[in-house]
Amino acid sequence: MLIIHAFLKVTPEHRTTFLELAEQVVKHTQAEPGNISYQLFEHTGQANTFVMLEEWQDEHALKQHGESAHFQEFIRKAKPLLVEPLQARKYEVIAQS
Amino acid sequence: MLIIHAFLKVTPEHRTTFLELAEQVVKHTQAEPGNISYQLFEHTGQANTFVMLEEWQDEHALKQHGESAHFQEFIRKAKPLLVEPLQARKYEVIAQS
Repeated sequence: MLIIHAFLKVTPEHRTTFLELAEQVVKHTQAEPGNISYQLFEHTGQANTFVMLEEWQDEHALKQHGESAHFQEFIRKAKPLLVEPLQARKYEVIAQS
Repeated sequence: MLIIHAFLKVTPEHRTTFLELAEQVVKHTQAEPGNISYQLFEHTGQANTFVMLEEWQDEHALKQHGESAHFQEFIRKAKPLLVEPLQARKYEVIAQS
């Protein structure tokens, strides 16, 4: 199993546009066969700093996601709304409890 | 390395009290030697649903945290503010990129 923490810092004036885009990519991604969970959260101490919390069955599922039209569109449209590049951390998990 | 996703659903009327408690436990926990990161986020689609995103060096660090006065106090005081019991998922990570 794989976990992704993808951090996105959005410029305040683009917050609403970003959340609309995010809602779409979440909806489509949660429908992907290899996805376990895919949820967007906002930092409670830093407004407009978000994390996409992702769980994936395996590398294949993550690769499929990366190549999906909905994800590519999200990245393309979200990029100009960000203060800095998206920062994703990927973790390979051997056990869960 | 260990990752914890701790989900907390707070009753709306206790939101402010919860965030004040959380701020304290975050401050003290981030100062713990074995902690890598410890951040609170709120779900963008479900108000008052929070996740504490945690990274720990090892089991020993996590055990120390669990036995710490600040964490024990947080759990004791936060419990009555929650809609349902805290749900923590623990992941043992073998690789990070």
